[in-house]
Amino acid sequence: MKFYYAPGTVARATFIALEEAEADYRCVRVEFSKGDQNSTTYRKVNPKGRVPALITDEGVLTETPAMLAFVAQLYPEAGLAPLDDPFTFAQVQSFNNYICATLHVAHAHRVRGSRWADEDASLLDMQNKVPQTVGECFRYIEDQAFIGPYVMGENYTICDPYLYTVSGWMEGDGIDIKAYPNIHAHRKMMDQRAAVQRVLELETTVG
Amino acid sequence: MKFYYAPGTVARATFIALEEAEADYRCVRVEFSKGDQNSTTYRKVNPKGRVPALITDEGVLTETPAMLAFVAQLYPEAGLAPLDDPFTFAQVQSFNNYICATLHVAHAHRVRGSRWADEDASLLDMQNKVPQTVGECFRYIEDQAFIGPYVMGENYTICDPYLYTVSGWMEGDGIDIKAYPNIHAHRKMMDQRAAVQRVLELETTVG
Repeated sequence: MKFYYAPGTVARATFIALEEAEADYRCVRVEFSKGDQNSTTYRKVNPKGRVPALITDEGVLTETPAMLAFVAQLYPEAGLAPLDDPFTFAQVQSFNNYICATLHVAHAHRVRGSRWADEDASLLDMQNKVPQTVGECFRYIEDQAFIGPYVMGENYTICDPYLYTVSGWMEGDGIDIKAYPNIHAHRKMMDQRAAVQRVLELETTVG
Repeated sequence: MKFYYAPGTVARATFIALEEAEADYRCVRVEFSKGDQNSTTYRKVNPKGRVPALITDEGVLTETPAMLAFVAQLYPEAGLAPLDDPFTFAQVQSFNNYICATLHVAHAHRVRGSRWADEDASLLDMQNKVPQTVGECFRYIEDQAFIGPYVMGENYTICDPYLYTVSGWMEGDGIDIKAYPNIHAHRKMMDQRAAVQRVLELETTVG
């Protein structure tokens, strides 16, 4: 498999899951600084012009929650999701969907506001609201959705690399992670994992 | 199971899937006109104050793509998703995640812009852009993601009630469905399904 990513983006979540699963794949960096996500070559991989994307023998996959569940299903021995328990699997998916459709969307209004509005004043208005809206998302996770020590409790799942990835954006969004002790402890625990350290190293070094 | 919905909302997708699966459940209407989604009672069901929500014996589920996959897994005999084929299942999930995190989000900027900005001028700016942004989402589906006659080809899946639900918003978003022949044909085909007709009837009549 071939995994397309850009450093520091949401691709990190799937990247970590692939490393946790010891998946058979190689990674390819998409250079956002050169606008490569919009190149003709990359648009053939992902017409949406976003990362991540995963080329498999059967075709291309996009959208983080779908890719995370795919990695968990493809490598069941890695135990990354409760695949045979519909309710618990749905809880995992619900958490990941919340990150995708609410938290990540709130975050995107800081620097990608032009997706939804045109005027400079509107983009500034959106930016100003980000600490509040993203903060509320993390508050919901901290108080309601996080069990601990992992997101879903005692077992590491595909929720963990996703939370770890987006909690890495808190400082940039003007949010003090220390006000969220569960999420803070989760970040520190995740920092110690070999798969996370490998991905951070690969993001720095692999062209 | 107890299914919380409001008429005309995204809850319709899961509602249809429950009917297709002949699930054992009853539906409960949340009166948006009375603000019941923010009542103390409903916040105990779903702290996010949104619909849909599904109370099961094991707990509450929210987030449409997760709930759709749950219904498919809970009632495998209904054949609503390719559960044993990780790649095809991931394609189904990828389609549903795109609706959730991109199309539905673009649509929400028409009347829910205050989630992301405060000034009246910003909200108007967002509203003005909706025909373009939502139109681009349907264009991507029409040209790239839709196989036909169902979303995933010959087999009906949990993508179909979701597309049907959001394509029902096109006129309100200022988009002419006739410019999207695949999506238009899909709507007409779905209108004929017994499960869809039961849901539209229930949305009108059940308090």
